[in-house]
Amino acid sequence: MQRYFAKQKIKDQFILNEEDIYHIKTVMRMNQHDRIQVVYDAKVYLCCLENVNADIQIQIEKELEVKENKTPKITLLIPLLKEQKMDLILQKATELGVNRIIPIETERSIIKRKEEKEDKKIERWRRICKEASEQSYRIDIPEILPIQNPKNMKPLEGLSLICSTTETQKNIRFILNSNTTCDRINVAIGPEGGFSESEEQMWNQLGFISVSLGNRIMRVETVPIYILSVLNFYYME
Amino acid sequence: MQRYFAKQKIKDQFILNEEDIYHIKTVMRMNQHDRIQVVYDAKVYLCCLENVNADIQIQIEKELEVKENKTPKITLLIPLLKEQKMDLILQKATELGVNRIIPIETERSIIKRKEEKEDKKIERWRRICKEASEQSYRIDIPEILPIQNPKNMKPLEGLSLICSTTETQKNIRFILNSNTTCDRINVAIGPEGGFSESEEQMWNQLGFISVSLGNRIMRVETVPIYILSVLNFYYME
Repeated sequence: MQRYFAKQKIKDQFILNEEDIYHIKTVMRMNQHDRIQVVYDAKVYLCCLENVNADIQIQIEKELEVKENKTPKITLLIPLLKEQKMDLILQKATELGVNRIIPIETERSIIKRKEEKEDKKIERWRRICKEASEQSYRIDIPEILPIQNPKNMKPLEGLSLICSTTETQKNIRFILNSNTTCDRINVAIGPEGGFSESEEQMWNQLGFISVSLGNRIMRVETVPIYILSVLNFYYME
Repeated sequence: MQRYFAKQKIKDQFILNEEDIYHIKTVMRMNQHDRIQVVYDAKVYLCCLENVNADIQIQIEKELEVKENKTPKITLLIPLLKEQKMDLILQKATELGVNRIIPIETERSIIKRKEEKEDKKIERWRRICKEASEQSYRIDIPEILPIQNPKNMKPLEGLSLICSTTETQKNIRFILNSNTTCDRINVAIGPEGGFSESEEQMWNQLGFISVSLGNRIMRVETVPIYILSVLNFYYME
């Protein structure tokens, strides 16, 4: 069954955004009395389409039970990448349960920051995360923060890690086993070529622990998928 | 440094295939005395380009030391998928260390088998795996077997798992913890919509244990990346 995030709830009816209405009517070609799931305020409702004409009416039938996920809240800090790689990361990270994404400026990133285009870019990223959230039946949409420069950042709450290409002692398994009670995990991922030495030191000063992901040489867009897979596995009940 | 797989070794020189020679000359624009790494028979050599004209000459300077990876040998059995998804799986699975890929026929796959095009398809898949192996500095290229129908298959050696959408008791963590000494792991992944009930039974009869990957709803192309990430993490030293 299709799932949509509502933008508003008025009594026992939901208001969707225009793209979702287009999806229901034109892509899915749904009819009156067809059912959909609607998420609002982290609750999921089984709904019935009472009207699919100009004014679409979405009537709540009942609230559905939702299994809570006990994985710590995960923030990924990711470098600016080419569109295709960024899109892949956003889609896959959403599927795998990321809670927050902070795009970061890095020295070796090929993509440079263009402030005038930033709002549009973030808007686009949010749309990708919303769609992936619907597809993977999430009850929330990952939050995307504005692009940040680590020079101006403050330490984040929780266990903070930076994926290092030079760290050889502490690997991700060792670090997770030594921090079993954290409820927030933040992971900073470098661009192609990794963080520079001085960047890594700056992250360390911000409280990010350098960590090795093992011996494999992964492309940058594989790293966030790897990390989220590992965290899902590690905190599996 | 660029790494290439050689097709032949004659005394202290290597012969590469035409695509790699094109890559060296035209894409990378390398010159005489530039260095590359060449892999042959699971050994890695530092080599020097003695000649980059019509007859390219690749001279061995020395053999390099290689860290052995102690992860069990992993075979992925993957359904026939649209080209873009298949390519993503092949590239990422290679990066994450898959050893063998068996494309399988499944009931719900949208892509139907066309025997006359099969050789060309497999040839293409092999090329993707070779390139990804070079990029990720592997010393071997995953083997791709011909497309198989599970009805005609025999049990595989090692621990065999099938990703189930209905299994609720045994999750991947439980299964790995209960089979700590296997040196081969085979994982069968279903198409969009999963395996049918009768298909899952057939796999079970072939010795594949049904396993849950947790509560997340992943797209089919995410599943092999998830599994390989988990296995890399689980067997990390």
